[in-house]
Amino acid sequence: MKNISGHKNQNLKEIFLELAHFCEEYSLDKDKYGKGEFLNNFENEIAKVAGMEAGLFLPSGVMAQLIAIRIWADQAKIGRFACHESCHLIRHEEEAYKYLHQLEAIIIGQEGQVPLLEDLVKINKAVSSLVYELPMRHLGGDLPSLSELEQIKKYAQKHNIKVHIDGARVFEVLPYYDVSLSDLMSGVDSLFLSFYKGFGSTSGSMLLGSKDFIVKSKVWLRRHGGNLFQLYPLAIPAKFNFDKRRELFSQYYEKAKSLVEDLRSELGLVIVPEVIKSNMFHLRIPMGKEKLAEKMKLVNNYIINLGIWGEDSLGRSVVEFSVGDSTIDIPNKELLRVFSELISETKI
Amino acid sequence: MKNISGHKNQNLKEIFLELAHFCEEYSLDKDKYGKGEFLNNFENEIAKVAGMEAGLFLPSGVMAQLIAIRIWADQAKIGRFACHESCHLIRHEEEAYKYLHQLEAIIIGQEGQVPLLEDLVKINKAVSSLVYELPMRHLGGDLPSLSELEQIKKYAQKHNIKVHIDGARVFEVLPYYDVSLSDLMSGVDSLFLSFYKGFGSTSGSMLLGSKDFIVKSKVWLRRHGGNLFQLYPLAIPAKFNFDKRRELFSQYYEKAKSLVEDLRSELGLVIVPEVIKSNMFHLRIPMGKEKLAEKMKLVNNYIINLGIWGEDSLGRSVVEFSVGDSTIDIPNKELLRVFSELISETKI
Repeated sequence: MKNISGHKNQNLKEIFLELAHFCEEYSLDKDKYGKGEFLNNFENEIAKVAGMEAGLFLPSGVMAQLIAIRIWADQAKIGRFACHESCHLIRHEEEAYKYLHQLEAIIIGQEGQVPLLEDLVKINKAVSSLVYELPMRHLGGDLPSLSELEQIKKYAQKHNIKVHIDGARVFEVLPYYDVSLSDLMSGVDSLFLSFYKGFGSTSGSMLLGSKDFIVKSKVWLRRHGGNLFQLYPLAIPAKFNFDKRRELFSQYYEKAKSLVEDLRSELGLVIVPEVIKSNMFHLRIPMGKEKLAEKMKLVNNYIINLGIWGEDSLGRSVVEFSVGDSTIDIPNKELLRVFSELISETKI
Repeated sequence: MKNISGHKNQNLKEIFLELAHFCEEYSLDKDKYGKGEFLNNFENEIAKVAGMEAGLFLPSGVMAQLIAIRIWADQAKIGRFACHESCHLIRHEEEAYKYLHQLEAIIIGQEGQVPLLEDLVKINKAVSSLVYELPMRHLGGDLPSLSELEQIKKYAQKHNIKVHIDGARVFEVLPYYDVSLSDLMSGVDSLFLSFYKGFGSTSGSMLLGSKDFIVKSKVWLRRHGGNLFQLYPLAIPAKFNFDKRRELFSQYYEKAKSLVEDLRSELGLVIVPEVIKSNMFHLRIPMGKEKLAEKMKLVNNYIINLGIWGEDSLGRSVVEFSVGDSTIDIPNKELLRVFSELISETKI
């Protein structure tokens, strides 16, 4: 059974065998408390790709981002950061920024809209950093234009606001922007990357910034309990999948564009954002979420692994789709047939 | 080349191949954000072994212990905990208890001595919890007697002080105490276990306590960034090595006792503690740490993987030794020859 969204679902035996051969082929070594040839080379490799001075591998993005905003807050002696209401820090972390770091979030922009310069200008309290997500997951992968982003970076720099990019899926937007990651990160102070979204690895993330920023990050990583005895169980799959997929994001993006075009024209489905900007999008399926969840189980031959995020004001289910290796292998015609079955009223 | 201390040094290929076969043999499944059949069964298994209601697998012990003392502090509305000066929270965590949790540490007992009831009685401020390490690593694995421990538990209970056990190496002391873990944990409120010390796994730990305590722990784990997308890369090796070694700690203990006896009688080495109580001990080697580190590299046929902790007031190096699979395979006579070479004055 194939996933329709994302990558193929490998079993654990396959995963560990692949890693065993990968370790043998490249003579990888174990790390210890953040030190090791393989681990540090990988950190340097990603730093170079991102145009940043240094990198730090961490078990999770939650740690990476909390550490970044804490460092910027301590440095500026301003315990406030700005972000959109859909920011991971606001929605998915049990308010760790408040309970662990005593920081205050200043919410900018409008729900459902990419925050722009005008939203940043409206902030009426000093903030030490701006957390900006590229692409915005809760908006179906929407993005500002490059020039809008440039305005934001310039304004932030002028007003001593550090720019932290939540780049959990940032490789996924490079084909749309048609720039390198290091060009996109020009004027950015810190960046977080994830290896289990588009890259399809297991848990693991990277925090990037100046050498001084990474030195400080290591202290906070220890405090968070993320400076593990060994990181190789997470870092080796990350490197394996980084190598495997770093050149594939254009394919994912092109497939997403053509699939959305077909879903709109053939099935009349409502899809967000208006212009597809990455390998992801959100569908508004015209039925309640319980009913949709039931129908997803009844589709034959495919695993309908679509996250149902909730319902919109019109009672439609908000559903996330990400193009990955598994999607690539399924012709649009076949995907349309699956969606057609899913939204039909016949079976339930 | 064999390690003299601890377990055999496997390469990454061997480790991943072993895990691939283990996953196949037991049809293990992946977890997602803390949920999964394998993961939750493993948590329940350890909880049962420890005589606790519930368990939570975490990436690190740093998280586990910070979470425990924070929960007890919030519950009692008392932001202070008691512990020995050699406690991991004090020595190895960049004061995370202070910088992340705004807690205050009340140091009890004397340096180099196991804290006892009389030390607990001397505390003159209210504390919400007592962090007690079994065995005490910085004291070469020293321990209180079972009746001394019982007195501490009773006093704590009477004074509303929660007892949290730092049991990073607690399986290692069961042969000396000659009790089950669940009996040893009677009257204990929370327990942390590690899988990469005696068990020889990679990073990974377990926090154990009441159901309510574990529900609260999950919220704090999220805040720490430890509620990973997937924990299987750490949890599967933990279960593999738990199964492999849980019955071996008596062997390790017996070997440690006989080795110490021989090292004392044949080489006159000073070893702490006076009575060996686990698989570990500390040697006082009569030379400075730089010289010893150099000499360790010159011993043939063995990897002298002994941690040098520093120098004592007499200028002797304080060296940690843990008996593991690798040590078991080397006859005492051969180990004595190695130590004799190490402490001889001929080569440097």
